[in-house]
Amino acid sequence: MSDAKPLKAVVVGVGAEAGLGAALCRRFAAGGYEVLVAGTTPAKIERVAETIRNSGGQAIAVPTDTTREADVVALFDRAMADDATGPADLVVYNAGNNRPHDFRTMSIEWFEETWRVGCLGGFLVGREAARRLAPLGRGTILFTGASASLRGRPSFAAFSAAKAGLRMVAQAMAREFGPMGLHVAHVVIDGGIDGERLNSRVPQRRAEKGPDGMLQLDPIADAYWQLHRQHRSAWSHEVDLRPFVEPF
Amino acid sequence: MSDAKPLKAVVVGVGAEAGLGAALCRRFAAGGYEVLVAGTTPAKIERVAETIRNSGGQAIAVPTDTTREADVVALFDRAMADDATGPADLVVYNAGNNRPHDFRTMSIEWFEETWRVGCLGGFLVGREAARRLAPLGRGTILFTGASASLRGRPSFAAFSAAKAGLRMVAQAMAREFGPMGLHVAHVVIDGGIDGERLNSRVPQRRAEKGPDGMLQLDPIADAYWQLHRQHRSAWSHEVDLRPFVEPF
Amino acid sequence: MSDAKPLKAVVVGVGAEAGLGAALCRRFAAGGYEVLVAGTTPAKIERVAETIRNSGGQAIAVPTDTTREADVVALFDRAMADDATGPADLVVYNAGNNRPHDFRTMSIEWFEETWRVGCLGGFLVGREAARRLAPLGRGTILFTGASASLRGRPSFAAFSAAKAGLRMVAQAMAREFGPMGLHVAHVVIDGGIDGERLNSRVPQRRAEKGPDGMLQLDPIADAYWQLHRQHRSAWSHEVDLRPFVEPF
Amino acid sequence: MSDAKPLKAVVVGVGAEAGLGAALCRRFAAGGYEVLVAGTTPAKIERVAETIRNSGGQAIAVPTDTTREADVVALFDRAMADDATGPADLVVYNAGNNRPHDFRTMSIEWFEETWRVGCLGGFLVGREAARRLAPLGRGTILFTGASASLRGRPSFAAFSAAKAGLRMVAQAMAREFGPMGLHVAHVVIDGGIDGERLNSRVPQRRAEKGPDGMLQLDPIADAYWQLHRQHRSAWSHEVDLRPFVEPF
Repeated sequence: MSDAKPLKAVVVGVGAEAGLGAALCRRFAAGGYEVLVAGTTPAKIERVAETIRNSGGQAIAVPTDTTREADVVALFDRAMADDATGPADLVVYNAGNNRPHDFRTMSIEWFEETWRVGCLGGFLVGREAARRLAPLGRGTILFTGASASLRGRPSFAAFSAAKAGLRMVAQAMAREFGPMGLHVAHVVIDGGIDGERLNSRVPQRRAEKGPDGMLQLDPIADAYWQLHRQHRSAWSHEVDLRPFVEPF
Repeated sequence: MSDAKPLKAVVVGVGAEAGLGAALCRRFAAGGYEVLVAGTTPAKIERVAETIRNSGGQAIAVPTDTTREADVVALFDRAMADDATGPADLVVYNAGNNRPHDFRTMSIEWFEETWRVGCLGGFLVGREAARRLAPLGRGTILFTGASASLRGRPSFAAFSAAKAGLRMVAQAMAREFGPMGLHVAHVVIDGGIDGERLNSRVPQRRAEKGPDGMLQLDPIADAYWQLHRQHRSAWSHEVDLRPFVEPF
Repeated sequence: MSDAKPLKAVVVGVGAEAGLGAALCRRFAAGGYEVLVAGTTPAKIERVAETIRNSGGQAIAVPTDTTREADVVALFDRAMADDATGPADLVVYNAGNNRPHDFRTMSIEWFEETWRVGCLGGFLVGREAARRLAPLGRGTILFTGASASLRGRPSFAAFSAAKAGLRMVAQAMAREFGPMGLHVAHVVIDGGIDGERLNSRVPQRRAEKGPDGMLQLDPIADAYWQLHRQHRSAWSHEVDLRPFVEPF
Repeated sequence: MSDAKPLKAVVVGVGAEAGLGAALCRRFAAGGYEVLVAGTTPAKIERVAETIRNSGGQAIAVPTDTTREADVVALFDRAMADDATGPADLVVYNAGNNRPHDFRTMSIEWFEETWRVGCLGGFLVGREAARRLAPLGRGTILFTGASASLRGRPSFAAFSAAKAGLRMVAQAMAREFGPMGLHVAHVVIDGGIDGERLNSRVPQRRAEKGPDGMLQLDPIADAYWQLHRQHRSAWSHEVDLRPFVEPF
């Protein structure tokens, strides 16, 4: 919930403008937040930040490799600075690389790299956020999950192992830091997102599924925003989101 | 989501003003809905409806025994009438009787009665709502669950059996009617609600848990409202709610 | 685990010889148990008992409507009599009627009847067993579940609501009576059983699925037997069983 | 299931004789298997193998760092050799390091090392086993899990993230390789094991819990053995094991 001061949010795992990370940044900016836009590709996050600023919002691009501890620590040093809008009280870990791969030909490097982005980065972001927010006794930390967080399926062993691990980080954090006033929640996105990544990699999917068969970016971002706004007497820890036509 | 016409909601399982059913009625009325206030005790639901009307909202008390088919059918005949505000597109099943009982001394009548209110009534309400909303291709049907919906614990076998059954009704409905445009969701309330029922039956609990240890009514009602407002490209089917200090 | 005395088992929900109930009876008889063969159709259970006796085992048919309290009490009065082989220390609740039905045209009677056999009878059997075994501090009580115990699917709302309720009874019992020495477990049978019921009702399924696509009776019965034989320092509460080719 | 030829098993994650790995080796040897005893400490695994040989069984110690790909490949090159007893058709991944650690002071190295042993090693073993067993169309691959595989708790974020990841590897494998004839299962051990590790690290626990409060080694090993012996028409994928007094 809010504060008298202007507010600051951190979104980790931002890429293309037509992606969930960017949609979250825009939603939080529309809600009055200054947003630290964190991602690996400077040109992409700069564009996301610029679009927000051009619409009258506040956003700063912070190039961040979420698998590198130094980057994450530096991001939070900045995010939690007690400046005009800080410290940040809304943090999202949205990084992850959903890549199918045949199990028997999967390399150890592939398995590990999927875990670094999907799980280890989430631990680092969660730890840095908790270190700084727990003493303040407030704040929201949200993790982006997937149906793979709950179920292992052929070709998705690596992604699922990473995402299930991330979910456990979120659970452990919620149980430890909830009573201190930190709202830690995990969003299970079940279905394809109608964003740049899926549409560029698997363009036929959009055609097959139709406009109703994919999750739209802004409604997902709204769900994160609503989680942040929940009163602490009725917090959700896990929420699923899927298109109305999605089988589950 | 909404409609040009004024709107109508049905809340089944309303009792005291300081209860979740009443809070849901007030929230929906505040959102512009005419509310059918359904419950077993005429004096209670009339008071809930009157309070809403006195605040400028629209509400009608409809005495309903949710375990009797004729009552439920009559309620929905009224709810779905194509009158000024209808048909209803927001339905909540909130009835249930969380009563612990030692397992070995539990009567068959106790087990059955707990199921009639906790599960059978939910089936009737869900069926009547689905019959009438599926052809319209829109509407929201929400079921109130509990941690007992997910776990059976000593002394709560009857309640848990009823609530787990209700959850399966909600799941089966979501999978069948979601693709037709009906949003069916199940809310797992994990913790004691700071309402009339618990406070009158187990008054020491509030003293023990403190003001932070119980779910507040209005934040719960807000969560239901947000579920109703979700865009159909990103629907939640199951949401948990608990106080920030609640162990889980 | 065993006893110096000869042993007695109760299997509730026995029908055709080519059914799971009968297979359980035969397995327990082969393990040295006198078996009370309980089911609604006298001719069927008599045949099951006779086959066992003809093979040198001990079995007695006890006509039982598991939804009638008096029948269940009488069954357990007999089962727990401290006679040559008693009291029974192995009880299975295997009744249930997996019948699909369209949701919107489902009658309240159908929903209720499915619950009476699938859940209420299990409560009665569980309660009578617990009443008599808890003071002895030993015994095994097993419940037959299904994938519907865990998930509600279109056309299976009634069955799923009953089976999920039964699962909660099993969980509540396990948590209460486990520490007293009663092993309460729930077996999730995920897939079609190659028995009389399915083969007579949906004969094309066997042709479609092939011999590998269905659960065979004796291997299922073995799994129940192994649960009964587990040492109390390492009890399973929930076990899933499915054919190796079954998608899940 | 068995083979005419003498049989070979691989147990990865063997340490002290009073540990689960060693108990599994002894159980499989007692069942007629030649056992490859794989673990990181040569002296320990050699002692386990020697004890088995002294009892008339067959066992060979194979020093293996399960987090190193070359070690795992070499182990399986040996295990799957078509020699007198091979190829192995029973594989267990039992490595893991259950170490609590405060979340906010946890180093990235701790989080990663916990994952390497608890999850990455399991992927390597699973992959090497699947590569060699899938073409044969038979074999059993078992993974040791924990309650932390299912739930994240304070101080156990790292262990839980690793174990939940391992569980997803097991699920993905089961769904892919089950229909090819490989039985992949995951055992959730819920409670403390009365073995060398826990008793040396937390000796007071045994005193507090009493002899009934911990899982005994041989009954756990029996459960693994029974999983291996299941008929493929009724396979379990996930089994929980806990002492009868354990709250859950």
